[in-house]
Amino acid sequence: MTRMLIKNGIFVTMDEQLPQFKGWMAIEGHLIAGLGKGEAPDREVQSATEIMDGNGLLFMPGLVNTHGHAAMSLLRGLADDMVLQDWLQNHMWPTEAKFTGDDVYWGSALAAAEMIKSGTTTFVDMYDHMHRVAEVVEQSGQRASLTRGVIGLCPEDVQKAKLADAVQFAKDWHGAADGRINVMISPHAPYTCPPDYILKFVEAAHELDLPMHTHMSETLAEVEQNVRDYGYRPVEHLDRLGMFSRPTLVAHAVHLTDEEIALLAERNVAVSHNPVSNLKLASGVARVPELLKAGVTVSLGTDGAASNNNLDLFQEISMAALLHKGVSGDPTVIPAAEALRMGTVYGAQSIGLGGVTGQLKAGMKADFIALSIAKPHFVPQTDYISHLVYASRGSDVAHVWVDGKQLLKDGQLLTLDEEKILAEAERCFRRLRG
Amino acid sequence: MTRMLIKNGIFVTMDEQLPQFKGWMAIEGHLIAGLGKGEAPDREVQSATEIMDGNGLLFMPGLVNTHGHAAMSLLRGLADDMVLQDWLQNHMWPTEAKFTGDDVYWGSALAAAEMIKSGTTTFVDMYDHMHRVAEVVEQSGQRASLTRGVIGLCPEDVQKAKLADAVQFAKDWHGAADGRINVMISPHAPYTCPPDYILKFVEAAHELDLPMHTHMSETLAEVEQNVRDYGYRPVEHLDRLGMFSRPTLVAHAVHLTDEEIALLAERNVAVSHNPVSNLKLASGVARVPELLKAGVTVSLGTDGAASNNNLDLFQEISMAALLHKGVSGDPTVIPAAEALRMGTVYGAQSIGLGGVTGQLKAGMKADFIALSIAKPHFVPQTDYISHLVYASRGSDVAHVWVDGKQLLKDGQLLTLDEEKILAEAERCFRRLRG
Repeated sequence: MTRMLIKNGIFVTMDEQLPQFKGWMAIEGHLIAGLGKGEAPDREVQSATEIMDGNGLLFMPGLVNTHGHAAMSLLRGLADDMVLQDWLQNHMWPTEAKFTGDDVYWGSALAAAEMIKSGTTTFVDMYDHMHRVAEVVEQSGQRASLTRGVIGLCPEDVQKAKLADAVQFAKDWHGAADGRINVMISPHAPYTCPPDYILKFVEAAHELDLPMHTHMSETLAEVEQNVRDYGYRPVEHLDRLGMFSRPTLVAHAVHLTDEEIALLAERNVAVSHNPVSNLKLASGVARVPELLKAGVTVSLGTDGAASNNNLDLFQEISMAALLHKGVSGDPTVIPAAEALRMGTVYGAQSIGLGGVTGQLKAGMKADFIALSIAKPHFVPQTDYISHLVYASRGSDVAHVWVDGKQLLKDGQLLTLDEEKILAEAERCFRRLRG
Repeated sequence: MTRMLIKNGIFVTMDEQLPQFKGWMAIEGHLIAGLGKGEAPDREVQSATEIMDGNGLLFMPGLVNTHGHAAMSLLRGLADDMVLQDWLQNHMWPTEAKFTGDDVYWGSALAAAEMIKSGTTTFVDMYDHMHRVAEVVEQSGQRASLTRGVIGLCPEDVQKAKLADAVQFAKDWHGAADGRINVMISPHAPYTCPPDYILKFVEAAHELDLPMHTHMSETLAEVEQNVRDYGYRPVEHLDRLGMFSRPTLVAHAVHLTDEEIALLAERNVAVSHNPVSNLKLASGVARVPELLKAGVTVSLGTDGAASNNNLDLFQEISMAALLHKGVSGDPTVIPAAEALRMGTVYGAQSIGLGGVTGQLKAGMKADFIALSIAKPHFVPQTDYISHLVYASRGSDVAHVWVDGKQLLKDGQLLTLDEEKILAEAERCFRRLRG
């Protein structure tokens, strides 16, 4: 088996025991075999089949993007600066209704290319034509939690077919690609799925023993509608429908009461915070400091590129650290290290991959990235965790590995054909709009 | 005289007449000689001494950073996530007190390198040892409005010496470096300068016929203190001291009443909005939509790298477009084009350089940048103004020109020695902290 030794690198591990140091790391097969401060021990040098000089590079866990719709990259910049309903009803939905599997494939490939180049090694994706997204992940080499997001505002036979599609996708793809692909079960949102339909997804998730993912409380209007239609705010509504009896990740969770935060904590529900998308669509500012204080696992997502408009998780990390300070008036909330945990270890934990990815630690999967730090915005060498959160961006990422395999080298994609993807994505967009 | 013709580029001009197009631009000496859609006319091709293929590049005006303290780049990451007074009194001020001219030179060179590489061609800088900052600008080739920021909480003889230093700096450097350097007159802030001392700066600005720059209403505490100490909120206080009889640029202006906004508009006072710094220090969220609506010229600043922690104006542009939507609940406020104007043409106008820089227009200075757009986050080709604001970052900048001279080529600095600057800045920091 090959064994790579990285020497002389700066390592930011997200492991509380050994947060940042100059040293070495060894990779064997799919796994991190060991790491430590200072010079690599002789036994590491001797057993290495390949040695990499990490000088001028900062190594850290690959980022985990816990909410998105990769194929929506095809709609980047199509419509901005408008109210949500206008944006959805007049721009997004009419164009998305024309999406073929081919569009989903190339839109997702465009997203995969952007995510790898900006350091995201694991992502959650909720969309339609999911087997085409899974194909992209198989090829790109990333790790992903994929889920067929079902909108249930349709006749019963269509509902049935959609649920069957979601279940079939789970059966076909959960554990695929050497275990890099996991599957979740997703009613799209409480406001797009009637309660009895949500119940069927909960049942399916139990049968398949899979976690659940949904949009929840993104806007104030949908919370108010939930109360009007069903008598409860979304958290209690989903809790009563049994969703939280499964491991669940909810996206957005912008509008929460203290009681809802307490219930999410009690039920161990994880939250994907999407600060850039929430700001751009004017959904509001999620109560992240309160969620973290209550013990909720809060991770970060970009949402789709149409409401962001990029997939650079470093921007979400920085935004999470900045936004809540300014809005709360407390500059100590979400310190840099906590924001970085949200983009790595908390992300992994929120999709059942704690202990698998999101940290540099012996025995964990070799999902890691290297940033080029011989640049003005990394000087002086005060605190690399601060620099990663407040000064850096995805474009600093030079190399990416997932499952021990290199996906990006000197900024060049090794598993995807970038030129072809850009051309095909452009072609798909022209056809959709033409 | 050399005449460069750029063909086949995408141009985003910030000129209302011709916002974005595929075409050509001609540069002669220091100036933009002409530009237009489509193929370059024969006469342009014939008179060109150099032809550049702009394919795959997006050309736009260089960015204007209207508030900062370049030398504070030496303190990047030194102290984060703490309350303002702790940050200032226990970390910033003790270290800054040790700054020599040498530190200011290398700290400012570090900032200049970062700013050029991320597309800022003009910047405002307020600090001490300003002749060393001016030397950096002379060498870097950028355009700058420089100002000795004076804190007046000191004995009268020291006050006198500081004012004399500010005046001498103006006499020595205003109009220097082929007119690339302008000077402003700056009492640091109402809370750090007694009223009679501010009066002396207003007099000096009149005598020298120079504009003024100051910090104003950054925190709620300083506004309340102003009312306690002087009986007025900062806007009326400065107005009564005659400051607004000069063209004035105020930084921050976070805490404003409706009456203050109206007075700023009436007096034609420009505001430098620093959203990232205001969030990081938990100062609050400035009322930018209301300021713009009242007709105030609002531009963007990074503030010093110690409270940001980078100097990428693209992040401020994106933050300005995102933040105010989320906080106001209105997704139509500060649309992409307006955010981009804040980072370019409004910036130029706010320092008396409207008609000189900040737009691509025949007869204006050739201060422009080219972004490499053959990248996933620029696809599909929907709306380049949207992509610049919501998807791009400073690292997309490949080439930079100021005053017709190229400062950055393929990401490499042509006027500054980056490797030496990084090493010297690190050395300065070690000495300051050692």
